[in-house]
Amino acid sequence: MDDAVAVDFGEDGLVPAVAQDATSGEVLMLAYVSPEALERTRETGVAHYYSRSREELWQKGKTSGHEQHVQEVRVDCDADTLLYVVEQDGGACHTGYRSCFYRTIEGETVGERVFDPDAVYDE
Amino acid sequence: MDDAVAVDFGEDGLVPAVAQDATSGEVLMLAYVSPEALERTRETGVAHYYSRSREELWQKGKTSGHEQHVQEVRVDCDADTLLYVVEQDGGACHTGYRSCFYRTIEGETVGERVFDPDAVYDE
Repeated sequence: MDDAVAVDFGEDGLVPAVAQDATSGEVLMLAYVSPEALERTRETGVAHYYSRSREELWQKGKTSGHEQHVQEVRVDCDADTLLYVVEQDGGACHTGYRSCFYRTIEGETVGERVFDPDAVYDE
Repeated sequence: MDDAVAVDFGEDGLVPAVAQDATSGEVLMLAYVSPEALERTRETGVAHYYSRSREELWQKGKTSGHEQHVQEVRVDCDADTLLYVVEQDGGACHTGYRSCFYRTIEGETVGERVFDPDAVYDE
């Protein structure tokens, strides 16, 4: 992993990462990635992010089982945004939808609900 | 446009927006959007962003002619990220590639070059 493009993590040490379904091409979510999250993603092949609210490294699917198996990590022209091309187990969104982008800005639901969040997260 | 989902523009007044090709599903770019940029996008049907470096509203393709015709704007579950589903004229990337995500993190070029930037931007 020595020939990696140098990612510009900027002042806050984070870059946004877009997760895209490798099969359908659907944009699943956007979250933030720290250098450690990127390293763990590349080492394990499972998507890791950094939670800005909880201020900690976060393995997607650790609680829900809805892991993202990363086929490829891409970097944009400015090297300050990542694209995770993934195989998504279950749904990406904690609300039960396949994608977090399940609504239009007009408020119409256009996404597919694939699990019941109450059955997955017991809090 | 009165029934729009209330977007959470956060402390800096900006949200990230992912642009996705409506036809191919390709993720084209990520840029930032201000309330004004979103309003102009919805009014005109052409993608507008906010340039953090130039600190100004920015109509994509104004210089290059490579406009993005927005078919749909989606909002994520937390209402702090947008997805622009677009028809892309030419290429999204100023480097001449169709998508800004034309490289893997290992540095391999995987994207398609669709125009010569020297012929488009005379600076």
